Amino acid sequence: MIVRREDGAGGKYMSEFLKKYVFPKISSKAGEIALEDMEDSADFSENFVLTTDSYTVKPPLFRGGSIGSLAVCGTANDLAVVGAKPSYMSLSLIVQEGFEIEKLERIMEDISKAKDEVGVKVITGDTKVVEANIEIFINTTGVGERSEELEENLEAVRSYREYPFRWIRDKGAKEGEAVIVSGNVAEHGLTILLERESLNFEIDVSSDVYPVWKFVRKALKVGGITSMKDPTRGGLANALNEIAEKSGVGILVEEEKIPIREDVKFVCETLGIDPLSMANEGKVVMTVVKDLADEVLQVLKKFDENAEIIGYTTKEFSEVVMKTRIGTMKVVPPPVMDPVPRVC
Amino acid sequence: MIVRREDGAGGKYMSEFLKKYVFPKISSKAGEIALEDMEDSADFSENFVLTTDSYTVKPPLFRGGSIGSLAVCGTANDLAVVGAKPSYMSLSLIVQEGFEIEKLERIMEDISKAKDEVGVKVITGDTKVVEANIEIFINTTGVGERSEELEENLEAVRSYREYPFRWIRDKGAKEGEAVIVSGNVAEHGLTILLERESLNFEIDVSSDVYPVWKFVRKALKVGGITSMKDPTRGGLANALNEIAEKSGVGILVEEEKIPIREDVKFVCETLGIDPLSMANEGKVVMTVVKDLADEVLQVLKKFDENAEIIGYTTKEFSEVVMKTRIGTMKVVPPPVMDPVPRVC
Repeated sequence: MIVRREDGAGGKYMSEFLKKYVFPKISSKAGEIALEDMEDSADFSENFVLTTDSYTVKPPLFRGGSIGSLAVCGTANDLAVVGAKPSYMSLSLIVQEGFEIEKLERIMEDISKAKDEVGVKVITGDTKVVEANIEIFINTTGVGERSEELEENLEAVRSYREYPFRWIRDKGAKEGEAVIVSGNVAEHGLTILLERESLNFEIDVSSDVYPVWKFVRKALKVGGITSMKDPTRGGLANALNEIAEKSGVGILVEEEKIPIREDVKFVCETLGIDPLSMANEGKVVMTVVKDLADEVLQVLKKFDENAEIIGYTTKEFSEVVMKTRIGTMKVVPPPVMDPVPRVC
Repeated sequence: MIVRREDGAGGKYMSEFLKKYVFPKISSKAGEIALEDMEDSADFSENFVLTTDSYTVKPPLFRGGSIGSLAVCGTANDLAVVGAKPSYMSLSLIVQEGFEIEKLERIMEDISKAKDEVGVKVITGDTKVVEANIEIFINTTGVGERSEELEENLEAVRSYREYPFRWIRDKGAKEGEAVIVSGNVAEHGLTILLERESLNFEIDVSSDVYPVWKFVRKALKVGGITSMKDPTRGGLANALNEIAEKSGVGILVEEEKIPIREDVKFVCETLGIDPLSMANEGKVVMTVVKDLADEVLQVLKKFDENAEIIGYTTKEFSEVVMKTRIGTMKVVPPPVMDPVPRVC
């Protein structure tokens, strides 16, 4: 028996792999969020959360960013979606012997810019050089702090209904809430795929890598957010399915509401890939108490006019269902894996 | 210009590499310990410290342990040597496609055992599968908490002299203090070297990988520890030089006091390698206020009878100097790099 590519590709296979080989050995929790909850961050010592990601994206430099910007934003985003302010970060570089210094300098420059944009402090690090053909891998681990914005959000939610969690949880959604996406999807995944495969499409697309805390904090101040995820590996389809499954609700989305560029959609479909399963690195999907949804949307639109309410949670079914442009209904299953290997 | 093996091998070259390409871009600190101080952990939010390490040891399974036990103990040890209780940890696996599940299971088993022995909680994680020829890399990032033992230690130190730091710092030593090593050195590095090179020496040696908090906390309770490091990459020679340079003191050690097995020393020297630059994964070296040194040593000896006072700090010179078995004096320079690549 060997480890398969799909065991680490987000989605259903990875989840099965972790449940079989990882969680039984090391399951533990320090607060309300356990390792095996598979949320974006886990809380400790009342007011902090911890999250980790190893970035192995290939190529390490791509249109719109690099493994450097990805490593800072990706980890900061995992803190932001539980409602935590990204405060501190560790940075661990694993570099292949022979990697060009010029590339490393560009990556470090991106790390520097991204950390300043997020407002996170890189306080500790590690460097290894190996002979394996990796180019560069980066691990960032982030510490987030309980924020005023989170408290305001929870207060707003609780003025409408019970919310028994101290952080924004994947399982926090209830029926009758709006589902909002903060901007166009599928652009990071498509960028990486096109760069790697040297596919010749005449399309001007680049990674959407961006620190979501910059707009998430404004949305939290309006309040009403009951669950939130950044749709990375496995894309929007994976994020929606995780919220639906963990919250025990169905989700009905309208295809024509899902923000995606026509040309991005066209290229994905030409390549036989569902754009909803393509990774994003600067977007969030959230469920919001109905009465506050429009106000949250307006705040998000100030940052990205493509933000949209794409549907609602429901108790009528338990899957993620999409009403297509031609009016038919189809189930959006959880992706078995991300369609692009080494996308982040 | 390319990244060289020595840029990530501990020691002088790595330090130069970091000062040139990494620190200028991302230098920051959240408490008293800055990234560029290159200490084992950095403090944040008053009562916590953070540390990170990516483990790339080859082979991933070796006599006495595996990359799994190394990943938990190594990171916990970096927390322990600043005086923090290892409390929480993240675990990020990067696994090569095709890696044997049986090996992965042994590694997970080691992680499980080590985390229980340390008493640390693994609360968040990440998994990636890549096609690069790495076998397995593991990043662990640890959060340590201010401990009662640390407070007791600082109180004891301050009853003898000023100590202007809130954590145990590399720069904390002053002249006239005892230098203690907690047990035999060079065994981890030699084990990895022998396994990898399939060298045929008739020697029964295995990695010393062990969570040092188990005995460090007892030593802290006695008190008087003014600086402490776990001598990993670059070994005892590197750890002593770091303390000497950062504290601005010289260190005089006696060769015959340095605990090392005769056969380990013999094999190292036969291979042309200085055993003092070989990595250890379950030892500490510390400076201790003179009056408390014997008591600290006795506590350490309960855990490992080979613990020894190997010398003293001095203002007579600024290097690390060793009095050899034949009575001559020689400088122990900071290793330019660890003699064994991918040792941890």
